[in-house]
Amino acid sequence: MPVTRLDLARIEAARRVIDPIFLDTPCYRCDALESALGCAVSIKLETANPVRSFKGRGTELVASQLPDGSSVVCASAGNLGQALAWSGRGRGLDVTVVASRFAPAAKLDRIRALGARLELVDGDFDAARERAADIARRDGVRLVEDSLDVETCEGAGTIGLELVDTVPSCDAVLIALGGGAMATGVGHVLKAKAPNVEVICVQPVGAPAMTLSWRERRLVTTDSTDTIADGVAGRRPIPAVLDDLLVVADDAVLVRESSIIAGMRLLLTHAGLVVEPSAALGVAAIIEDRDRFAGRHVVTIVCGGNVDLDAYHRWIAG
Amino acid sequence: MPVTRLDLARIEAARRVIDPIFLDTPCYRCDALESALGCAVSIKLETANPVRSFKGRGTELVASQLPDGSSVVCASAGNLGQALAWSGRGRGLDVTVVASRFAPAAKLDRIRALGARLELVDGDFDAARERAADIARRDGVRLVEDSLDVETCEGAGTIGLELVDTVPSCDAVLIALGGGAMATGVGHVLKAKAPNVEVICVQPVGAPAMTLSWRERRLVTTDSTDTIADGVAGRRPIPAVLDDLLVVADDAVLVRESSIIAGMRLLLTHAGLVVEPSAALGVAAIIEDRDRFAGRHVVTIVCGGNVDLDAYHRWIAG
Repeated sequence: MPVTRLDLARIEAARRVIDPIFLDTPCYRCDALESALGCAVSIKLETANPVRSFKGRGTELVASQLPDGSSVVCASAGNLGQALAWSGRGRGLDVTVVASRFAPAAKLDRIRALGARLELVDGDFDAARERAADIARRDGVRLVEDSLDVETCEGAGTIGLELVDTVPSCDAVLIALGGGAMATGVGHVLKAKAPNVEVICVQPVGAPAMTLSWRERRLVTTDSTDTIADGVAGRRPIPAVLDDLLVVADDAVLVRESSIIAGMRLLLTHAGLVVEPSAALGVAAIIEDRDRFAGRHVVTIVCGGNVDLDAYHRWIAG
Repeated sequence: MPVTRLDLARIEAARRVIDPIFLDTPCYRCDALESALGCAVSIKLETANPVRSFKGRGTELVASQLPDGSSVVCASAGNLGQALAWSGRGRGLDVTVVASRFAPAAKLDRIRALGARLELVDGDFDAARERAADIARRDGVRLVEDSLDVETCEGAGTIGLELVDTVPSCDAVLIALGGGAMATGVGHVLKAKAPNVEVICVQPVGAPAMTLSWRERRLVTTDSTDTIADGVAGRRPIPAVLDDLLVVADDAVLVRESSIIAGMRLLLTHAGLVVEPSAALGVAAIIEDRDRFAGRHVVTIVCGGNVDLDAYHRWIAG
């Protein structure tokens, strides 16, 4: 049993707390991708829900533990904010989301539409994290920190339980790596219940801080990020999350922007899915290392579909 | 309890026979569509499976009743053929699909890729039906007739069971109407278990035969069809299916091509979904009669996502 901050029994219990609308998401073999990529590919689809990403699993868990009517603040690259707004709306929570003003408009618009207060900062996601922490201190309200708050990891971990139930014989699971909530959550469950399944984290070469940290087994930060995969673009990994990732990840790979775009294109043409760049990281990893995956059965978690369509069409057409 | 050829107990039993990959599909409120359409819209998403349409529910049921290794033939507008090929492949069935050579290339390619024998006819779907019947007679093999074979209706009826479980308080369900398998299947279950939910069938004005038949309570055929919604473009309704539809449908409406395209566009921009024209019929019906649905909670079944992307982009850009 892997020893991390996460707890398998709590993850099992989370299934009974999270709104079913976020659970038991589709998981299916995609033949058309198989012939394009040279390996069996199963898609775990996390976009067919009211916030179009997996983040609702974690925010449901967070929100279920807060008193009705309480206040909560989070920093978000865009998806956590939507999910927290959704979970908070149903429970009468007062939700503030801090985001970079450079986040995709689609994400920012939907945070507002879901009734959250949105505060924008001029900097990037890590600047938003600082600002959210300031607000929490100033106002004395609960700060939800993605990946650091174990509920965000354990919520995502319910994906792992579903994978063990539905594709127990797969060879590898490809997980987009940003702050690490999904990677540590899914990874913890896989290592506990299906230890032979390879847990592979995938990050853009333009936002490599957590991958470099994992490889060097020490915290590595970067000064900036340069990637279209806005959902995973962090510069400063969280030490406790790195510690967990060192326990559960078998590998962490970096992929090029061109591969992310090629992955998005393949998911559209071969699977009919419009996804955000972060959700194409897994396919990008296969594209960059076909030999590694040849003939194997690989699951890729399609973790989000919030994308500005103008940018999307530009990338796809490129 | 509605009296049709369908049987609620058999539909309940079908849930235990159909591969779970086709069952318990996502059903979720889409806030963004709500503001665009003036009513609460829940999406029942039938595209996140290996054949990207609801047809697997019916073909699983059909295939489960055939001896392993037996032969089967069907006519298909494209989606039934994929689904029968998928269900047959897992059971070692010898599957022949007859389709119009004017069916979308994406559908024809995937029928072949799934290992079925594909025979093309120069005419339309109803010509393919004749040819499939000829083959069945000539070769003495099982003919699967969509909507006439009660398994195709009862398989689709499992969608109705899921709707009753997940959105019991909705006001209306919008169902794409072609041959009538989905409409009679879902309609039968709703009338049996949630009789206050309005069952509304939607067909293109360019392929109105079944709707006209329902309205006149007698068989009406047309000489041709003219619609981009290839999945529902039939000219000759099946009498037994019409009889059932008269029992379970509360209304049948016709929508314009421009509304179908507007519906596809809304599903892309507000729900992030690439759908085939037939799957946008429900949204098209709301667009054409906003007053009717204002303030109500409407479920639309997004029944298929097999579309030629070139045509799709042309329609959306139009």
